[in-house]
Amino acid sequence: MLIDRLIEKITNLNAPIVVGLDPRLSQIPSHIKDAVYADKGKTPEAAAEIIYTFNQGIIDSIYDIVPAVKPQIAMYEQFGPAGLACYFKTIAYAKSKGLIVIGDIKRGDIASTAEAYSYAHIGATDIEGTTTPTAQTDFITVNPYMGYDSIEPYLSDCQKHDKGLFILVKTSNPSSSQIQDLQAADGRPVYMHVGELVSQWGMQFIGKSVFSSIGAVVGATHPAEGKTLRELLPNTFFLVPGYGAQGGKAADLTGMLNKDGLGIIVNNSRGITGAYQAEKYKGKFSEADFAQAARAAVLDMKADLEENL
Amino acid sequence: MLIDRLIEKITNLNAPIVVGLDPRLSQIPSHIKDAVYADKGKTPEAAAEIIYTFNQGIIDSIYDIVPAVKPQIAMYEQFGPAGLACYFKTIAYAKSKGLIVIGDIKRGDIASTAEAYSYAHIGATDIEGTTTPTAQTDFITVNPYMGYDSIEPYLSDCQKHDKGLFILVKTSNPSSSQIQDLQAADGRPVYMHVGELVSQWGMQFIGKSVFSSIGAVVGATHPAEGKTLRELLPNTFFLVPGYGAQGGKAADLTGMLNKDGLGIIVNNSRGITGAYQAEKYKGKFSEADFAQAARAAVLDMKADLEENL
Repeated sequence: MLIDRLIEKITNLNAPIVVGLDPRLSQIPSHIKDAVYADKGKTPEAAAEIIYTFNQGIIDSIYDIVPAVKPQIAMYEQFGPAGLACYFKTIAYAKSKGLIVIGDIKRGDIASTAEAYSYAHIGATDIEGTTTPTAQTDFITVNPYMGYDSIEPYLSDCQKHDKGLFILVKTSNPSSSQIQDLQAADGRPVYMHVGELVSQWGMQFIGKSVFSSIGAVVGATHPAEGKTLRELLPNTFFLVPGYGAQGGKAADLTGMLNKDGLGIIVNNSRGITGAYQAEKYKGKFSEADFAQAARAAVLDMKADLEENL
Repeated sequence: MLIDRLIEKITNLNAPIVVGLDPRLSQIPSHIKDAVYADKGKTPEAAAEIIYTFNQGIIDSIYDIVPAVKPQIAMYEQFGPAGLACYFKTIAYAKSKGLIVIGDIKRGDIASTAEAYSYAHIGATDIEGTTTPTAQTDFITVNPYMGYDSIEPYLSDCQKHDKGLFILVKTSNPSSSQIQDLQAADGRPVYMHVGELVSQWGMQFIGKSVFSSIGAVVGATHPAEGKTLRELLPNTFFLVPGYGAQGGKAADLTGMLNKDGLGIIVNNSRGITGAYQAEKYKGKFSEADFAQAARAAVLDMKADLEENL
């Protein structure tokens, strides 16, 4: 099962790390951009080509030391069809290097619509009898606000194609408190109720360990809530955004681990892909060495997690 | 302001109706499909071309009797980049006919990501100093689970480009009860709390009437909740899915109107675009007359709403 493969990779590499591929053009070295802009102008097609080249550089530099990458689809969608094509190509390239790919798409809609999203991202689209495989991400993130029938179509494709989900439970952003922390009549916040639903939905997807391929998104910026959720949801693996740029620290994550030291994969996007621009790495790496800087940042994150978890 | 234009169109046409453009290939007449499949095979490109031709037929047939259309992006996204291009083209075509376009995208993510979604759908993407306009939908639907900072980037583009939002409050699907109806400590369900947030977020967007360009999604399948929300949110316009195929009836909508008989726009997708396949219209319209059947279905829906509201 997918979750077993993820945990095996995390254990073998000793790296509960996922590199977020959320490319910003301002973060991409000019030696990649200049020729493309000269050829194609500042067009969506040029942006897509530039981002793909950049992503390839990052992936080539880190695929042997991390289990997974997580492209954020919004950063591609903003460039329209060319951007979406780049998103699909990035996924295919990452998979060709043996990486597990988490598509950060946060979709959520009624069943007949969720089915189409599921086809697009973890299943296959049927064109009147002819099957067209689409993004083929391994995991996708989804939004639970609409309840079970909006999640069920994904579960069906997870079963069919050995895929997985990370469902939003307690997100890393400050305003996540507005709805997710709202206290329910039983005295517990909404996110605990959502967490329990996610755990129930995932029961059929528990692999060789205690964990399910149906996981939860739990922000590194909320250590207390993370600890509560770990105790409440022993079978739910957490995708943890918010480390680094958003303020989450390694020590904040300890409560999210189970007694075997497992249970999380921690995302870092800008902190890795933009490392060459950061104070810490600037002196050591030139712009041309952006990919080596990313590798150094992964190794430093690994050391940080080893030391503090 | 956008909401004023929407209300003016609704009033002038006496039609609080939005036609959902959620094309299914099985619903499209073979005279549109056969030549394209013969030429391009059963490919995403063929599907996109077929859907665009079908959408044009529907739009040409109804643009003078309804104020708006609502393409559901998932039905396009499942065909990858070609599908997304078709989604964009459909929006452009509908706008060229004077229709207001509601992009049903239900996106929701942290601020820096929401910004990219906003650029993609209601704003303009910046390619290092060069602005690329993207989908240019008028309204989009968004998901509130992550709270204000996940909504703020859209509000900023709404201000800049005179756009609007419909934020999920009480959705039409059966499982919407799981999270949305969860009772909070104050005895009121989550959806009422979300509704109040939506109302607050929309205060800066109130136009000439009492209504704001920041509206809410409230399902026709929940008449009691709709009435409660109308009383609670006098300034919030409702996008109402769930009429027809999902079981919502015109009489269920009365509680969602204010004393001026305003406050809702009711979606109908399959009931209109697939009318030629329905028992009711089969005898009167051949497959070739799918667009005329759609027009007849709009006029029947208009009569139904007039009679029962």
